[in-house]
Amino acid sequence: MTGSGPIAILAGSGQLPIQLVEYLERTGQDFRILAFRGFAAPELRRRAHAQADLLDLKTIMATLEKWQPRAVTLAGAVRRPGFSALLGAYSLLRNRQEVKEVIARGDDQVLRGAVMLLEERGYTVVGAHELASGLVAPLALHGDLHPGPDDREAVEVGISLLTSLSAFDIGQAAVVSRRHVLAIEGPEGTDRMLRRVAGLRRSWLGLRRRREGGVLIKAAKRGQDLRVDMPAIGPRTIVESVQAGLSGIAVGAGSTLILEQEKTLRLANEQGLFLVAVDLPWMEEGRE
Amino acid sequence: MTGSGPIAILAGSGQLPIQLVEYLERTGQDFRILAFRGFAAPELRRRAHAQADLLDLKTIMATLEKWQPRAVTLAGAVRRPGFSALLGAYSLLRNRQEVKEVIARGDDQVLRGAVMLLEERGYTVVGAHELASGLVAPLALHGDLHPGPDDREAVEVGISLLTSLSAFDIGQAAVVSRRHVLAIEGPEGTDRMLRRVAGLRRSWLGLRRRREGGVLIKAAKRGQDLRVDMPAIGPRTIVESVQAGLSGIAVGAGSTLILEQEKTLRLANEQGLFLVAVDLPWMEEGRE
Repeated sequence: MTGSGPIAILAGSGQLPIQLVEYLERTGQDFRILAFRGFAAPELRRRAHAQADLLDLKTIMATLEKWQPRAVTLAGAVRRPGFSALLGAYSLLRNRQEVKEVIARGDDQVLRGAVMLLEERGYTVVGAHELASGLVAPLALHGDLHPGPDDREAVEVGISLLTSLSAFDIGQAAVVSRRHVLAIEGPEGTDRMLRRVAGLRRSWLGLRRRREGGVLIKAAKRGQDLRVDMPAIGPRTIVESVQAGLSGIAVGAGSTLILEQEKTLRLANEQGLFLVAVDLPWMEEGRE
Repeated sequence: MTGSGPIAILAGSGQLPIQLVEYLERTGQDFRILAFRGFAAPELRRRAHAQADLLDLKTIMATLEKWQPRAVTLAGAVRRPGFSALLGAYSLLRNRQEVKEVIARGDDQVLRGAVMLLEERGYTVVGAHELASGLVAPLALHGDLHPGPDDREAVEVGISLLTSLSAFDIGQAAVVSRRHVLAIEGPEGTDRMLRRVAGLRRSWLGLRRRREGGVLIKAAKRGQDLRVDMPAIGPRTIVESVQAGLSGIAVGAGSTLILEQEKTLRLANEQGLFLVAVDLPWMEEGRE
């Protein structure tokens, strides 16, 4: 631990930083929020102790210097920076080429660079899952429904596919129907991938059918730094999966965040979707 | 050779069957066209000697029986059957469950099944590339421009990615920018994948930039039966790649069809896109 101060949350978009804040509050922990402009949700920005542009390293470092946090966590997505965020960065970095190079390296690389930089300055960087284990999918997680033989086959194919993709900067998620891969997630994210599957099925049949089946498999990659980009699902994932005609969702146990867990499970049950956590072959490595 | 009759072309959608017919005409070969309703282009259907619904095996087999072809070839896409095609099949097969199972197996499986069925009946099934080698991308293929170091790295990553995906029923193509994978092709096809990349880039920057770079890599999978689903590019691929802000296209030498080769190369040159053929590591296996 580098400081005795609060936990510093560098907050991007989505539900994760909001849930994390709620969790830390509930468990009586001291924290400070630094919200990224153009990413953090309005409700979080209203509560933030500081704000900064994503690439404004000067402000970010000065803020942390002041807080002397005992741990720093990156929570929430900072993918696909909006135009305003990039413009802010342009004016602070030496030239546009630098920004282009950072972006060309891929999302993971940008965040991995941030972790390295923070550690170089002596900060302890932790993942949201280390601060709030209650948000992580346990192996025992499941809703009321369970996958049938076709869906279990799809889950196996999906895990094997994500394993094959571990070496590449892409793909925390895929949609598989039996042995047939319908989509692999790119930088567009899980929700848009699910909408793509919904679209595929519309064009196959002229109109959407009720429930064609197929499974969303979402899991951390082998060797993925969970402090940098931890897979997450939530109520919206359930809704999009239903729209895509899927029969269920399988997430990597111990390495996937379930946002609003109670609501997510209730929605899955209501919508007739199974939701299970599965053991990943490469999670053993980390445990040894 | 099973018969001494014509070459029978079972024609699906797209340019390939049209190009194949032109090639066979130009080289003075005897052929007959069986056009699939709902797939074959109108100009091809006007010239067809017979028509059938995609899953109407009775008509297809009776037609071939009459023609006694020396070879049968499946040319053109039959992916995403339209509603009318499926309805036609519904009325001919025993029940809807059968149709659903055929579709669930994946596109490749459907066509592989067709090849097996034809071979069981004693027909010689050949690929369009065996009938019209002039349509296949030679290793020497290239336009006026050549890939720079970043793009050569992207091509390497892309080939390696497609190799990793060979075991799965997905992905003849991907878009890679340096080492960053922007998209992997699913059943939606290359054009829609390229539109997805164009969309990603719009949302990254709020508006589309002229030429962000990145490469479309398209190649046959390891072990892929080229008679069933041969990768192809054409003028439209060039247009969509430009829209997606790519700097070039790399195709697998000897295993990719270039439709309207002259027009495709001219368009690539005009639009400032490189177009190259690359040796695939697994093509050696077939040659031994």
